[in-house]
Amino acid sequence: MYFHLQQLINDIEVDEPDPAAANALQEGLGGQFGEMRTMMQYLFQSINFRGPAGKPYRDLIQGIGTEEISHVELIGTTISRLLDGSPAYQGKKDAPVDAPGAGGAVPLEIALDHSNIHHYLVGAQGALPVDAAGNPWMGSYVYNSGNLVLDLLYNLMLESTGRLQKCRLYEMTANKTARSTISYLIVRDQAHENAYAKALETLGVNWRTSLPIPKTNAESFPEVKRLLDLGLQSTQYSFDLDDRSEAGRIFQGMSPSGDGTELIADQQAPEGVPSVIAPERPEEFAPGADAELQALIQATAEMEMADIEAPFGRMTSS
Amino acid sequence: MYFHLQQLINDIEVDEPDPAAANALQEGLGGQFGEMRTMMQYLFQSINFRGPAGKPYRDLIQGIGTEEISHVELIGTTISRLLDGSPAYQGKKDAPVDAPGAGGAVPLEIALDHSNIHHYLVGAQGALPVDAAGNPWMGSYVYNSGNLVLDLLYNLMLESTGRLQKCRLYEMTANKTARSTISYLIVRDQAHENAYAKALETLGVNWRTSLPIPKTNAESFPEVKRLLDLGLQSTQYSFDLDDRSEAGRIFQGMSPSGDGTELIADQQAPEGVPSVIAPERPEEFAPGADAELQALIQATAEMEMADIEAPFGRMTSS
Amino acid sequence: MYFHLQQLINDIEVDEPDPAAANALQEGLGGQFGEMRTMMQYLFQSINFRGPAGKPYRDLIQGIGTEEISHVELIGTTISRLLDGSPAYQGKKDAPVDAPGAGGAVPLEIALDHSNIHHYLVGAQGALPVDAAGNPWMGSYVYNSGNLVLDLLYNLMLESTGRLQKCRLYEMTANKTARSTISYLIVRDQAHENAYAKALETLGVNWRTSLPIPKTNAESFPEVKRLLDLGLQSTQYSFDLDDRSEAGRIFQGMSPSGDGTELIADQQAPEGVPSVIAPERPEEFAPGADAELQALIQATAEMEMADIEAPFGRMTSS
Amino acid sequence: MYFHLQQLINDIEVDEPDPAAANALQEGLGGQFGEMRTMMQYLFQSINFRGPAGKPYRDLIQGIGTEEISHVELIGTTISRLLDGSPAYQGKKDAPVDAPGAGGAVPLEIALDHSNIHHYLVGAQGALPVDAAGNPWMGSYVYNSGNLVLDLLYNLMLESTGRLQKCRLYEMTANKTARSTISYLIVRDQAHENAYAKALETLGVNWRTSLPIPKTNAESFPEVKRLLDLGLQSTQYSFDLDDRSEAGRIFQGMSPSGDGTELIADQQAPEGVPSVIAPERPEEFAPGADAELQALIQATAEMEMADIEAPFGRMTSS
Amino acid sequence: MYFHLQQLINDIEVDEPDPAAANALQEGLGGQFGEMRTMMQYLFQSINFRGPAGKPYRDLIQGIGTEEISHVELIGTTISRLLDGSPAYQGKKDAPVDAPGAGGAVPLEIALDHSNIHHYLVGAQGALPVDAAGNPWMGSYVYNSGNLVLDLLYNLMLESTGRLQKCRLYEMTANKTARSTISYLIVRDQAHENAYAKALETLGVNWRTSLPIPKTNAESFPEVKRLLDLGLQSTQYSFDLDDRSEAGRIFQGMSPSGDGTELIADQQAPEGVPSVIAPERPEEFAPGADAELQALIQATAEMEMADIEAPFGRMTSS
Amino acid sequence: MYFHLQQLINDIEVDEPDPAAANALQEGLGGQFGEMRTMMQYLFQSINFRGPAGKPYRDLIQGIGTEEISHVELIGTTISRLLDGSPAYQGKKDAPVDAPGAGGAVPLEIALDHSNIHHYLVGAQGALPVDAAGNPWMGSYVYNSGNLVLDLLYNLMLESTGRLQKCRLYEMTANKTARSTISYLIVRDQAHENAYAKALETLGVNWRTSLPIPKTNAESFPEVKRLLDLGLQSTQYSFDLDDRSEAGRIFQGMSPSGDGTELIADQQAPEGVPSVIAPERPEEFAPGADAELQALIQATAEMEMADIEAPFGRMTSS
Repeated sequence: MYFHLQQLINDIEVDEPDPAAANALQEGLGGQFGEMRTMMQYLFQSINFRGPAGKPYRDLIQGIGTEEISHVELIGTTISRLLDGSPAYQGKKDAPVDAPGAGGAVPLEIALDHSNIHHYLVGAQGALPVDAAGNPWMGSYVYNSGNLVLDLLYNLMLESTGRLQKCRLYEMTANKTARSTISYLIVRDQAHENAYAKALETLGVNWRTSLPIPKTNAESFPEVKRLLDLGLQSTQYSFDLDDRSEAGRIFQGMSPSGDGTELIADQQAPEGVPSVIAPERPEEFAPGADAELQALIQATAEMEMADIEAPFGRMTSS
Repeated sequence: MYFHLQQLINDIEVDEPDPAAANALQEGLGGQFGEMRTMMQYLFQSINFRGPAGKPYRDLIQGIGTEEISHVELIGTTISRLLDGSPAYQGKKDAPVDAPGAGGAVPLEIALDHSNIHHYLVGAQGALPVDAAGNPWMGSYVYNSGNLVLDLLYNLMLESTGRLQKCRLYEMTANKTARSTISYLIVRDQAHENAYAKALETLGVNWRTSLPIPKTNAESFPEVKRLLDLGLQSTQYSFDLDDRSEAGRIFQGMSPSGDGTELIADQQAPEGVPSVIAPERPEEFAPGADAELQALIQATAEMEMADIEAPFGRMTSS
Repeated sequence: MYFHLQQLINDIEVDEPDPAAANALQEGLGGQFGEMRTMMQYLFQSINFRGPAGKPYRDLIQGIGTEEISHVELIGTTISRLLDGSPAYQGKKDAPVDAPGAGGAVPLEIALDHSNIHHYLVGAQGALPVDAAGNPWMGSYVYNSGNLVLDLLYNLMLESTGRLQKCRLYEMTANKTARSTISYLIVRDQAHENAYAKALETLGVNWRTSLPIPKTNAESFPEVKRLLDLGLQSTQYSFDLDDRSEAGRIFQGMSPSGDGTELIADQQAPEGVPSVIAPERPEEFAPGADAELQALIQATAEMEMADIEAPFGRMTSS
Repeated sequence: MYFHLQQLINDIEVDEPDPAAANALQEGLGGQFGEMRTMMQYLFQSINFRGPAGKPYRDLIQGIGTEEISHVELIGTTISRLLDGSPAYQGKKDAPVDAPGAGGAVPLEIALDHSNIHHYLVGAQGALPVDAAGNPWMGSYVYNSGNLVLDLLYNLMLESTGRLQKCRLYEMTANKTARSTISYLIVRDQAHENAYAKALETLGVNWRTSLPIPKTNAESFPEVKRLLDLGLQSTQYSFDLDDRSEAGRIFQGMSPSGDGTELIADQQAPEGVPSVIAPERPEEFAPGADAELQALIQATAEMEMADIEAPFGRMTSS
Repeated sequence: MYFHLQQLINDIEVDEPDPAAANALQEGLGGQFGEMRTMMQYLFQSINFRGPAGKPYRDLIQGIGTEEISHVELIGTTISRLLDGSPAYQGKKDAPVDAPGAGGAVPLEIALDHSNIHHYLVGAQGALPVDAAGNPWMGSYVYNSGNLVLDLLYNLMLESTGRLQKCRLYEMTANKTARSTISYLIVRDQAHENAYAKALETLGVNWRTSLPIPKTNAESFPEVKRLLDLGLQSTQYSFDLDDRSEAGRIFQGMSPSGDGTELIADQQAPEGVPSVIAPERPEEFAPGADAELQALIQATAEMEMADIEAPFGRMTSS
Repeated sequence: MYFHLQQLINDIEVDEPDPAAANALQEGLGGQFGEMRTMMQYLFQSINFRGPAGKPYRDLIQGIGTEEISHVELIGTTISRLLDGSPAYQGKKDAPVDAPGAGGAVPLEIALDHSNIHHYLVGAQGALPVDAAGNPWMGSYVYNSGNLVLDLLYNLMLESTGRLQKCRLYEMTANKTARSTISYLIVRDQAHENAYAKALETLGVNWRTSLPIPKTNAESFPEVKRLLDLGLQSTQYSFDLDDRSEAGRIFQGMSPSGDGTELIADQQAPEGVPSVIAPERPEEFAPGADAELQALIQATAEMEMADIEAPFGRMTSS
């Protein structure tokens, strides 16, 4: 059973809207090696897990899988923020984007040559379950062979590829909103890579100096370095409400990545940051509950009161 | 941020394995109107939600979305149990299924003409992220127009269709394992249908006698009736750890389905039931951490101790 | 602009339900070489046609394309009839299939091991836009290169392949409902093959004895022979309401298939047969407008009258 | 059975070519909520319809479905016109685009960075069965649950979403060719939304002030306003050649959208406008029947005459 | 540049036709971990390879990739043989399957409830580029990150998973035709797993006792044991015509799988076996060049001679 | 069985990197009418071929199919070269692209608005198995009806469409690297079109002046003209190592394309050109075996020597 806390797992830095960066980040959300994939893969591996004696491995996968749901939430929100307000941003800050369409205005013109047109046409400046080339996420991405060692090997490769792609994403944009989430996920992917590598160590592999795979210079990215200094690459949370997770029996000892740190798994979860709700976007006809709707809600409530006094069943007699 | 509890949201009754029923239930997991879809749709709608004044609506969607993750877990586990051990079950209980392949035995012959062959060939008698016809789940299923009223209308239709399909599933199998989960989901889909119908009521619609859509006779299914008598169709949980959900401002008053009950949203979550880990299946080469692996783990641990005494960097000098 | 006549383009013979035959026929509806494909391909070729001097070719394609919509209607209806009532038919004619689910009955059990489970689970014993292996129809099937000669060559191959597959379908089932539609479509595919072959003749190709491609012995199928004797393979209708079609300038002279007949294009349309509406299927919760619904409609109408007398705006004053 | 009239259902205004607008309009043609989808969905719902007593509902769906084929024709033609000649248009009006490729010229260079490259590379400056992000149309879009009320609810949502997307499209381009078709479809989607909302009214729902969903300010778009003033949002045609449609029994009375108009269904079809055939495009090697081809046709005809005089079988004796 | 030899890479044992086994083997051909995938993946990795110093690694991948094309040929031919003649085989050996369709016979009835109906309806009792559940092969399966170590790690996992699935396939059928190819591919997958594991060893990993992954008991399958005794799991061929491959610099030394053998890479290719062409199947209208066609070819040749004597250009003067 | 020669089938001219041209060429690699498709289609047609008497036809298809693998290699390498180094090329030749990410640099910024972002994000400036619009290649493209004449007709159309698209590609870019490969493939497609047209001639068709289809002015493209003058459109190689191909019995006589040349099939293969390995790209974290890796390899080798002296089994005793 799952629960939610109205907090984001990491803070998202404020910067200008940037639809091109938003689109690039879609790979990290809905791509073949993105967060929706890791989330679903680990969820299925946990559900289908075999062998009660392997509970520490199941709990490790389950815990990382739960974290990935929060990563979906984090990167989805980041994409949403990068898109939000972008029509106004494109050098036309005074254009009346909030007066959709009237008088021949084209407030969504930006959609024609930036990013994925679906961000404006199908969604309303929000994240989509697709990759950076617009391909929808597919269930066939999920790998769950049922053989524990093979699943662990695949998971290691999956985290390594996710990290590689995020290092490339870092090099594609200098937008701070994008980079704050990219950097956080680079470090967390490293933590998960360490987790699966350690699990394989317990099953016989000696990685020597081969880890991490791939070797990048991400440690020279300032935002990444800050998180590495905090040891986030060597920490794993349980996200388990009852403290029954035995993942710590695996995630311990020296990091297999050879950075000299020790693996620690003694926390339930990181401290979160408050999440906020995005503003309305009239040019998308995307009101949440705007003034007009609020009035309608109020009017309806009053009408319902009247209904109760003169209810449906007795209407003809009224 | 999300958390997990090592409990299932509802109990799964024990019955014989049944791969055909397992395959049918895949529609409820990976189908266009199944639990993976509702889960993802509500997750995206929560992330991309617009309008701070609409927080009660966001919280309603977020809460149902969190519940859907537990439904994925529940129906996935149900499918896994229906498949687990099915090769032995098919009238050949004495066949040595645990001695895979030796001597020309064909312990997985069942895969050729039952259910989806991928259940045995790609997975190891476990659930897959596909529908009952074998189509992988697709991100393009997710609907999130960004217009609140339209999203609510879609969600109502989505829950109604999910319930319709589950009523049909009930009529396809008498297996108790399958029916216990089907029945539970029929009633919870009804609760979610009530939630979205009520939300639309606050925005002006009067459903009169039109709900529920569709009208079925599911209330005559004994397993369903038991849950209706408990009022599960009129209860919504918050699944919110900090009690910040305002969903109860919408989910209240008389049920729009016209069954005379009152909607109640005062609980965080239902009482769960313990989850168990499935046994190993040698014919799938699907050991979790079996005896051999345990020995290997032990041996590795000892070897690591030796490594620490004679570590890698100084190996040539040892 | 398109119009509809409440008639089927050909009669469908009556026989027992047969879900396996229904599923096989899906290839002719939603398959890569089925009627949805020819319909869409010719519609796009007509819309995008280039060169006013080529109007006879455009009109030929447009006319065949319009016919294909009627073929979609014909084969879709055929599939629907083959499925309709099949749960009762399977050797259990006395089973209470109209009492869905109550008391543990499994009236839709047939869905688990016949045909495509979606015929019962997603649809309600009706046709689906998929092929015989369950793959959904795809827009990428449509071929429209924009080069007239190449498009005609492709269309010839398309009709030939459609006919080949239908000859194979004929050999897969003896069900008369299925065979009556299969046979009709074999002959009409031949007519269309003749049309495109003739068009290529006007552009320089001499087919000599090579047509038809492929050579089958379909003329020995009794149902096919009857239609050939009527000359349906050498007749093309315009389906044009204003008689502006110039297709007859191409579809004339000796048939390129070498059967000694002359091509004739002097009719607007064949005489149709009345279409009927299928009965309700309670076990699918698929009422159209059943007794209960009729009552509701009536009640609603009366209520509306009351509303008009006591309209919405003045409700509080009632 | 279906028929065609060589007329477009609405006029397309003349403006400059605009490949970016053409690509955006693809969503309205081949997108998940575009005209191919409504057309196919209503066609399948008509074919699979259950319950003779529900004929007025069937006829309503059938009539709208037939209209949607004309919409496919209209928007497909609009896209084709927006693309046609665009290579020349891009600020290089004197470039020899009609001399494809010779001397190193790159007349199709525009394809590399505008719109969807397939518009020039796979098609020949014509419409494609894909959405604005290039995804091919899929049969899995079609919804046909078999339960009448649920199907009507879905259809309402479908038309509402189609209208929402078209309002966004209006805001993306000021091109008059694009806007004339967008505006027409906004108003017709509204008419269809009214039709399904009215049908649901007969089944018990009271929409009060909730319609239309979503509320946009499209009535302030000049092209839309002109059509609203003509009452096109409250008119439904039968497109039925024999006047057997009973759709008017539903499509009558006050509009559920609350605009104070009355629903009228007394016309067979709107007055169409003549359609024209597009010019040839040598740079696409897309001649219809150009001068060279005409000569070939003529020569072939003469040759055939010779053949008849000296036919194939006796050729050696000539 | 590639060349072909009219020989199969391994012999296929003779046994009865078996469409269910044929369908299961499709996973090994067109599945996500089948031979089309390995072939394409290694082909792309070779084309896109970076770093001249890494030529031995490129050559290793290129050589295995070339072998995979022969595996596609081998398993495709095996599937074709398992299907070929299966309609006659199904307990109806005297049925006139060679007289397609005449007199109401249903020679392809088998297609309705065995295997994948496309094997008979779309193909003509031949292999298809799909997996065992009927999903078409997809380009998105190909993994080529561009990072050598990561690509090697993925390739190791890919071969391991391919071998796991083939071990499961072995357990699904006792058909000798199927098992002879399955067994051969199990051993060759092991050889390729050794190759990638060895390559990772050169880059720092010490596998200790962890290989092979997964550990199966395939060595107890008699057909597999025979090939292991021949050392096929420790042999790699270059398939390089000019002997420029440097793969042997990696594929040498003790096998990383811990079976005590030494890796050997000194052969260009195994000795092949002659391939044969399948017979015609009239019930599929699948003649290659049958008697009728031979006569036509002869007649055409004679006619061409006549044409040359009385050629086209001077026809009018003849 | 297949073999490889470390040579490209044709030379690739040197020019600047050009990611937009690279992306356009993807259609020729992974598009519906590209080289992966012809390669796979002919491979399947060869494997499933029926009728020993038709061996010359089988050999013709097999030989062209083998050539298509080399075409995949050629166009894949061309795309790779067009992408390779493109980040540096975009007017920023002095930017430190080899210092990925440090100090906030965005060396891969080009990925956001050029070509397909996957070229930089998923691949490492290398070819992908997708088309120019980013759609992954699909197995459902492959056509293999099993009827020889129909398969030949399809193959003719396939080569014609491939050539048409390549003529359009030529018009989209003046980049010499791109044009050298495009031109070569135009001429080879023509040769294959001739082959299938000739095969159909032997089966009865007289093409008269209708070929080639389509008629383009590609002969006026200088690079194409040079190859035509060499007669490459009328030459077919066997690519058969044992000279058992009988394709020459078909590919002989006057070219059906009416260019007055004679068809010749007396060579095994063209003379190839040496292939080279691409340089490393640090900004993609795509080292092959760079200095660091070389050192690691050396160190590992030394360590392995130590291991042999103090092997695993006796480690504790060391």
